[in-house]
Amino acid sequence: MSDTAKEVENIVIIGSGPAGWTAAIYAARADLDPVVYEGVPKQDPALILPGGQLMLTTEVENYPGFPDGVTGPNMMEGFKKQAQRFDTRIMQQDIETCDFSSRPFTLTTSKGDTVKAKSVIIATGAVANWLGLDNEMRLAKNGGGVSACAVCDGALPAFRDQPLIVVGGGDTAMEEAMYLSKFASKVLIVHRRDQLRASQAMQERVLGNPKCEVLWNKTVVDVLGDDHVTGVKLKDTQTGEETEQEARGVFVAIGHTPATKFLKDTGLEFDDKGYLKLPDGGTSYTNIEGVFAAGDVADAVYRQAITAAGMGCKAAIDAERWLGEQE
Amino acid sequence: MSDTAKEVENIVIIGSGPAGWTAAIYAARADLDPVVYEGVPKQDPALILPGGQLMLTTEVENYPGFPDGVTGPNMMEGFKKQAQRFDTRIMQQDIETCDFSSRPFTLTTSKGDTVKAKSVIIATGAVANWLGLDNEMRLAKNGGGVSACAVCDGALPAFRDQPLIVVGGGDTAMEEAMYLSKFASKVLIVHRRDQLRASQAMQERVLGNPKCEVLWNKTVVDVLGDDHVTGVKLKDTQTGEETEQEARGVFVAIGHTPATKFLKDTGLEFDDKGYLKLPDGGTSYTNIEGVFAAGDVADAVYRQAITAAGMGCKAAIDAERWLGEQE
Repeated sequence: MSDTAKEVENIVIIGSGPAGWTAAIYAARADLDPVVYEGVPKQDPALILPGGQLMLTTEVENYPGFPDGVTGPNMMEGFKKQAQRFDTRIMQQDIETCDFSSRPFTLTTSKGDTVKAKSVIIATGAVANWLGLDNEMRLAKNGGGVSACAVCDGALPAFRDQPLIVVGGGDTAMEEAMYLSKFASKVLIVHRRDQLRASQAMQERVLGNPKCEVLWNKTVVDVLGDDHVTGVKLKDTQTGEETEQEARGVFVAIGHTPATKFLKDTGLEFDDKGYLKLPDGGTSYTNIEGVFAAGDVADAVYRQAITAAGMGCKAAIDAERWLGEQE
Repeated sequence: MSDTAKEVENIVIIGSGPAGWTAAIYAARADLDPVVYEGVPKQDPALILPGGQLMLTTEVENYPGFPDGVTGPNMMEGFKKQAQRFDTRIMQQDIETCDFSSRPFTLTTSKGDTVKAKSVIIATGAVANWLGLDNEMRLAKNGGGVSACAVCDGALPAFRDQPLIVVGGGDTAMEEAMYLSKFASKVLIVHRRDQLRASQAMQERVLGNPKCEVLWNKTVVDVLGDDHVTGVKLKDTQTGEETEQEARGVFVAIGHTPATKFLKDTGLEFDDKGYLKLPDGGTSYTNIEGVFAAGDVADAVYRQAITAAGMGCKAAIDAERWLGEQE
């Protein structure tokens, strides 16, 4: 942990989720002596550093290689251990600024240190947007039935044939609702307005699904339940009336925020939601030579541990070859 | 294992490596009741079905999640078990023909059965081209020092500061040689001609690397060693003279053959090496709607277990959403 920085790093990896650690494993095995800036632990439980979003996940059943499942924190501990086995250096700091205008690149850390780097892999992930309720975070952390990912958690036995809540009105919320309708007795979509933002096609699919129902003009003002979700408290946005709705799970689908704020004005290109753009979607190259991206920070679509890890591997291989070309 | 076919399958997954099993895990958890055609065991040890190329790999150190490493066959057993946990049906048959001209698609199996499918995920992988020597396969299977993947195996301790052989003269062979030069005492590139096929830039990098040397006009006619590689027997392609060369590892880099022969004349598009084309490299969509591809069969660049698994996940998510749109 008390690893030392080099005068000029070959590869600086920013982030410590599946993408970051996988990039580190591959870069370390390629003898590139990478350094990972894993981030400083944050007070806000929704800013899940270090380790990324899996630190909130109790049971991971879909990461291939764990037939009996694994907890998110244990999985991330294993990833980190594997990176350390190949002598990855790890810094418990955030990267706060990046200057990609000349090479080697210049980064600064939360401790005020300056880091020079021949190449950089950005794997800072994205955080789910939450409602900001105390009981929401409590029941998200304990596997209590609050989730921001239907594909990750929807198939868990606890949700089978139970009423589930989806919060949101965009395409992602509709996708989550359609996905959950395979398991749930009923999917109740809580939306604050009287019309959805989702595309017409997605709306038609959801509104035509007998298991899905939209609760219009409602917001979730509390999540109910001690050990697990038993319902939500709703407030009508027009009348102010509060009601309770029984449910076994709450899927918050009001978007994600990619962790790219520190990259503003670096010349990197983003899509309209703030995700890093990969001009060739099949590789990890960004629009700046020598800067690579992996994981949810560049993926608004799949957002799975296994896809992020695959991208981390690609980024390390791309960086290794690119560095070779520069010599 | 005695799983039964359905009248019309939602998703047929062809292949049983990391991509195929990951697609199955995700499709099964999405309640799509997928079926995997895992293939019939083959006599030829180079045609590694079922399970894919990892069945030849003794020690996998770079698949994230296994800090202490795992054997390839154990890893594939775990993947399969995980797919079965979510009730994936598994058929021990090859798919021999595919008719994608109308939906549902029509496939035929090695037993002569007809399979109807709403969607298909192709994850049949690629096989390394080998020299075809008995001792080569023997020492590839036992982790004895013959490999077709420097990124996978090059960092193993046994190869550190040892002389290594790379067989081939193309860009991939040069990449393997450059990669191995970080670990080896010496990298000897055995090439049958008096000039390389690799690009000028790659040639310059290799020929300018003091650790790399090309043995021109030579072929490997035998691999020497009992428990592990101790050297190779070389034959001069011009004089016919045979010599022995000491080495601890042999990296065969004469290309891969994607398992796409059964897909000829289906309308699917391939690149010039026979790999399936993914028009949008960031997704698993092929040029035919309802047909998705994942893993090495569509990846000539990265070819790692973790990248293949990531693609398998994408294919299942893409197929799930596409099937939803068709309803």
